[in-house]
Amino acid sequence: MPKRVDHEQRRNAIIEALWRIAGTSGLEGVSLSQIATEAGVSKGLVQHYFRNKDEMLVHATGRLRERVGERIAHGLAGLPAARTSRTALRAFLAALLPTDDGSRTESLVANAFLIRALKDPAIADRFRDGNTQLRHAVVGLVSAAQAEGDLSADLDPARETDILLALVAGLGDALLLGHHTETSALAVLDHQLDRLAPG
Amino acid sequence: MPKRVDHEQRRNAIIEALWRIAGTSGLEGVSLSQIATEAGVSKGLVQHYFRNKDEMLVHATGRLRERVGERIAHGLAGLPAARTSRTALRAFLAALLPTDDGSRTESLVANAFLIRALKDPAIADRFRDGNTQLRHAVVGLVSAAQAEGDLSADLDPARETDILLALVAGLGDALLLGHHTETSALAVLDHQLDRLAPG
Repeated sequence: MPKRVDHEQRRNAIIEALWRIAGTSGLEGVSLSQIATEAGVSKGLVQHYFRNKDEMLVHATGRLRERVGERIAHGLAGLPAARTSRTALRAFLAALLPTDDGSRTESLVANAFLIRALKDPAIADRFRDGNTQLRHAVVGLVSAAQAEGDLSADLDPARETDILLALVAGLGDALLLGHHTETSALAVLDHQLDRLAPG
Repeated sequence: MPKRVDHEQRRNAIIEALWRIAGTSGLEGVSLSQIATEAGVSKGLVQHYFRNKDEMLVHATGRLRERVGERIAHGLAGLPAARTSRTALRAFLAALLPTDDGSRTESLVANAFLIRALKDPAIADRFRDGNTQLRHAVVGLVSAAQAEGDLSADLDPARETDILLALVAGLGDALLLGHHTETSALAVLDHQLDRLAPG
């Protein structure tokens, strides 16, 4: 199936181009022509794969979810085999922080999409699904860490998940803006996690 | 000085127009002509007050800070005279959440400016100043609540401020996206504040 692979590669190359533009200058006034130039293809080819900019943006949010998922998986894979759920929880949350070029771009793209999500139900649905998956995973890790005795049994996993995800989202913006460094953001996260340990 | 007042009113009317556009469709591809149309004035008049779009955006971020300051002041003014610092801290943080049309627009505008801040030192400076002021105010309220015995004396006010401000920022995005309601976001905030009470 060499043809099929080729199509997917081209499609991904176009999305990656949109991505690079969104990560450096936002989605402000980005045109199909600009995206074509950035991807090194013709505008016609872009239009062959995506009917319009909105369709491309929906694809780009899908790619965003994939990349965040890959980043989390990578963070978890870097842990020792004898990892605890508490350690996995920390690695999971840390993977959501924009601490290198790749995750920084993801955060910028997510921010660029935020206003669009408020007007575009397809993008809003993707954000909602992504958020539900994240919550589900974090609730699972909090519960497991409670079962392992590393987090207090008294905690409501759903409530703590709400706090941890909002905290990481806020720290992410602060990192982008230079109000936190990677070190200080992780220290804030660790402080909150330490507080959840059995008393 | 009627002339001077008139100039300021016109300038503000133009900024309010930029504001309405940013709050509904972001800063994507917004042009001086669009802003002029929204403000009900000529493009020439817009150019009389602002040399270019960037100058207008810097003014708009200044207006953002003013509005957030007014909102916080309003939240604090609504408290009983015998308010505690703990109550003031809660009102202060709650005022930063997008819970009505005005604060929702402010959050959207702040988000629309985030990527710009990364490229534009003038806007980044304004964000940094605003953040420093916010941190200073929250550190003061946490310290005062500790002195009044309503928050644990063991806490590091700067560290707790980092957590609370990041939490509120993350909850704000979740509110905009509909992942939280006002009630659930406030419940999350209250849960974190309750945890800071003396044991």
